Amino acid sequence: MNNDDQTSRRSEWHAALQKLITKSPERRSEFLTESGLAVDALYEPGSDFCHERDLGFPGFFPFTRGVQPNMYRGRFWTMRQYAGFGTAEESNARYKYLLSQGTTGLSVAFDLPTQIGFDSDSAEAVGEVGRVGVAVCSLDDMQVLFDGVPLEKISTSMTINATASTLMAMYIAVARSRGIPESSLEGTVQNDILKEFIARGTYIYPPGHSLRLVTDVIEYCRVNLPKWNTISISGYHIREAGSTAIQELAFTFADAIAYVEAALARGMDIDEFAPRLAFFWGCHNNFFEEIAKFRASRRVWSRIVRDRFGAKSARSMMLRFHTQTAGCTLTAQQPDNNAVRVTLQALAAVLGGTQSLHTNALDEALGLPTERTAQLALRTQQIIANESGVTDTVDPVGGSYYIESLTNRIEKAVWEELERIDQLGGSVKAIEAHYFQEAIAREAYRYQKDVESQDRIIVGVNRYHAEREAEAPVMKVDPSLEVKQRVRLGELRKSRSSVHVTNVLNRLRTTALSNENLMPVLIDAVELKTTLGEISNCLRETWGTYRDA
Amino acid sequence: MNNDDQTSRRSEWHAALQKLITKSPERRSEFLTESGLAVDALYEPGSDFCHERDLGFPGFFPFTRGVQPNMYRGRFWTMRQYAGFGTAEESNARYKYLLSQGTTGLSVAFDLPTQIGFDSDSAEAVGEVGRVGVAVCSLDDMQVLFDGVPLEKISTSMTINATASTLMAMYIAVARSRGIPESSLEGTVQNDILKEFIARGTYIYPPGHSLRLVTDVIEYCRVNLPKWNTISISGYHIREAGSTAIQELAFTFADAIAYVEAALARGMDIDEFAPRLAFFWGCHNNFFEEIAKFRASRRVWSRIVRDRFGAKSARSMMLRFHTQTAGCTLTAQQPDNNAVRVTLQALAAVLGGTQSLHTNALDEALGLPTERTAQLALRTQQIIANESGVTDTVDPVGGSYYIESLTNRIEKAVWEELERIDQLGGSVKAIEAHYFQEAIAREAYRYQKDVESQDRIIVGVNRYHAEREAEAPVMKVDPSLEVKQRVRLGELRKSRSSVHVTNVLNRLRTTALSNENLMPVLIDAVELKTTLGEISNCLRETWGTYRDA
Repeated sequence: MNNDDQTSRRSEWHAALQKLITKSPERRSEFLTESGLAVDALYEPGSDFCHERDLGFPGFFPFTRGVQPNMYRGRFWTMRQYAGFGTAEESNARYKYLLSQGTTGLSVAFDLPTQIGFDSDSAEAVGEVGRVGVAVCSLDDMQVLFDGVPLEKISTSMTINATASTLMAMYIAVARSRGIPESSLEGTVQNDILKEFIARGTYIYPPGHSLRLVTDVIEYCRVNLPKWNTISISGYHIREAGSTAIQELAFTFADAIAYVEAALARGMDIDEFAPRLAFFWGCHNNFFEEIAKFRASRRVWSRIVRDRFGAKSARSMMLRFHTQTAGCTLTAQQPDNNAVRVTLQALAAVLGGTQSLHTNALDEALGLPTERTAQLALRTQQIIANESGVTDTVDPVGGSYYIESLTNRIEKAVWEELERIDQLGGSVKAIEAHYFQEAIAREAYRYQKDVESQDRIIVGVNRYHAEREAEAPVMKVDPSLEVKQRVRLGELRKSRSSVHVTNVLNRLRTTALSNENLMPVLIDAVELKTTLGEISNCLRETWGTYRDA
Repeated sequence: MNNDDQTSRRSEWHAALQKLITKSPERRSEFLTESGLAVDALYEPGSDFCHERDLGFPGFFPFTRGVQPNMYRGRFWTMRQYAGFGTAEESNARYKYLLSQGTTGLSVAFDLPTQIGFDSDSAEAVGEVGRVGVAVCSLDDMQVLFDGVPLEKISTSMTINATASTLMAMYIAVARSRGIPESSLEGTVQNDILKEFIARGTYIYPPGHSLRLVTDVIEYCRVNLPKWNTISISGYHIREAGSTAIQELAFTFADAIAYVEAALARGMDIDEFAPRLAFFWGCHNNFFEEIAKFRASRRVWSRIVRDRFGAKSARSMMLRFHTQTAGCTLTAQQPDNNAVRVTLQALAAVLGGTQSLHTNALDEALGLPTERTAQLALRTQQIIANESGVTDTVDPVGGSYYIESLTNRIEKAVWEELERIDQLGGSVKAIEAHYFQEAIAREAYRYQKDVESQDRIIVGVNRYHAEREAEAPVMKVDPSLEVKQRVRLGELRKSRSSVHVTNVLNRLRTTALSNENLMPVLIDAVELKTTLGEISNCLRETWGTYRDA
């Protein structure tokens, strides 16, 4: 290409643009992504990206174009719909329905009491049993939850953090009771407690003890469940709390660095556990920024693992991630519109190379999905996979001047943010200093202000109101389930050996005060029908609880 | 970039790919676009596209990246929902509803009798009045249809072909009756009769006379309605009939060439009428092929107009187009799924730089859209425009190795196809030789075979069936409307001057046998309340009708 020619053509275009804008002003005086990156009128060759350094080949460092050499030409991502409500029976029926409809992985939502370590019959659980997920108090519940589900074949993701090790113990115990070897189990446990301090709030114990529980799971699985993703380090909730895409990556990587450091301090080798660290991103509305975010996330992480932690294995450097379309973008107004948003976000996740995907149901802003909306959410993925052709080549947007510019700019901004967090002393220190929380609050405030000023348009919310709002049928959890769950728990307590339970809780206490891994005693405890609440209370008494100042 | 390094990295990737494929075969042995173009595992720099030759700058030849220097940063495409049913009253109410919901252009669907020149009270119209569009027989109907719609402000598209000049005459007459100057009218009339012979079937007269009517509209508007798009040369119906994306472009350009040649033969200058030729594309499922198709279409047309017809004005070379999401991709099964397909197709159209867009309602495979589904269809566009950020930079996928490769390959295939059609003697000759019809039938057959063999998966149709099919409410046209329309027409015939009507039909006959432009006498005829059927019958008697052998 003749550079002079290119320059003179650009000048011509630029002059035409200026003339046009003078005559009819553009929609905005300034175009920005959600993260506040400037968006120019046009991106062209000669921008600052370098194929060799920035892109490379899929399956190879820095993995910008994907973690496999052929991506979805081999197989599609795992279609994993997050679900759970009421008691184990109801949730089990929904999982079977989803599997019959073609879902390819399970994803368990637990109710709030389960997440924060209270049994369904505790005072703290009243009104919350089975509401935002399934209530699981004991191994019996877990058995029912996975009744008829082939654990040796299907991969299961469990969204659980403060009580992750106890639920992991129950999952392992279910497998053992069916004669399924632990080593064959595939799935993920969220197990990311730091982001609970940053954004979501379902922590129990102080950060140090919390981090120890996380590390115990990593260490236990490294040996016993080699196919299990030991943690799903989650930007999703950080994003949902109001952060930008750049903060979502940077804050999550800061947490990831803390987990890696804790595992290294435990004496593990980076290449032994890093291949089983997984990530979890949200997917918000800004289509190209989100694609670029996913691509940048792979590039940044591969450099952290290689350059900061000295990993040697390519598998350690591969960032693999689950995506959920952004719940915070769903609107209660005109819920059908959410099907459009979810489609756009799901496509961005696929173009970004996600390994697994949850697509929100259009009525999730109103309540739990109905069967019809749950089906449509899954069909959204199946249509993208089977009908759109975007799965037939690797990283189809690769090389786009705009995408590559965004990917590079996001990467750069993430490095800058990570440096600030390092200067604060890392993630735990930054949490204690409220650095993350305040940064997110500032962004959430800015977003809300933009919506109120109509600087940001949300269809059906601050523009394009409907004359008549359509009524969407909303699924409600039967309140009698709470009673049923309490009765079941009462019977369990009567039927088990209380001596065994007391003994195992004593062992748990002693182990919690030692440096030993807690997983073996937790598995013993759940097998003896010790409840989640009893285990959590025992640890509360031993370690204390954390209250944010 | 170091080329040796790049080569050795590519070899490494390629070896890894081969090893992987040997272990776990890919989903298909061969990946193809809908048009049958091969899709490779990976696209990289160094493929054959050249920025200067193939892309250039938006607003400049060859317009690959768009026809305006800043595209949607200036303003969004026209959101133009095709609608019409029953009588003029019902359709008028729907237009007002759509305008209240934020639609930015009107698009009129006419019923079948209107399309083929029969009045609602004719024997040929029985059972078809107001079914697939609105019944318009006279200027009175047209007045009601646009009652309260500000013709001087809103642009109107009318999907009408064999009777386009009569409907144009009515539209002009409505404007005149309100004191609105013809010269201020904006909109389009489809007026593309050749594709009716190729694909859609609503022709009346032999090709030569049909082409004369088209040219009369072009010639009349050139002088009197300078802002009016005189024809919307339509690939949409060619695509819906089963053609590939490449055929859609090539066959449509062959028709376009015939229209240009007819206009040149009439003595018009290319730069006088070419700026007002518009195009109409479908948007099928293959996301990237469709984006590439839109981009390639601009490039091909600019070269045809400049190099084949010697246009001098850049405005003549700009291909501007309306898009409709592909009706043939909608499924009657699980109609909610169509909202996903429509979203993906609409996004592809926007990334391809469309000037105007109709998004199908999810229930259009079942019947006419209800208000709720019509609203969602429009909201789909509004969400893409306002929430996704894809409108903030020009041609955001530009430079993508895959997109540029597809764009170039589609362009090349279109030139090859155009050369074959030239060798057949152009579009009219090719129609008479059934060339298009047979080529389309072959592709439609191949597609159907792929669906039957499950080589092509259609979600909800040949895979992913629902246990329970949800019922979608379907809108039905009230059958009493047909009676009402007949009564109205009877009253019209009684109230008007039959002498005037006879005289004007005589003038029409004489003019039809001359070389004079028919538009002035058609306007006089409709102003005297001559009906569409009477006008069409007069021309049938004069010119004869066409029956395909």
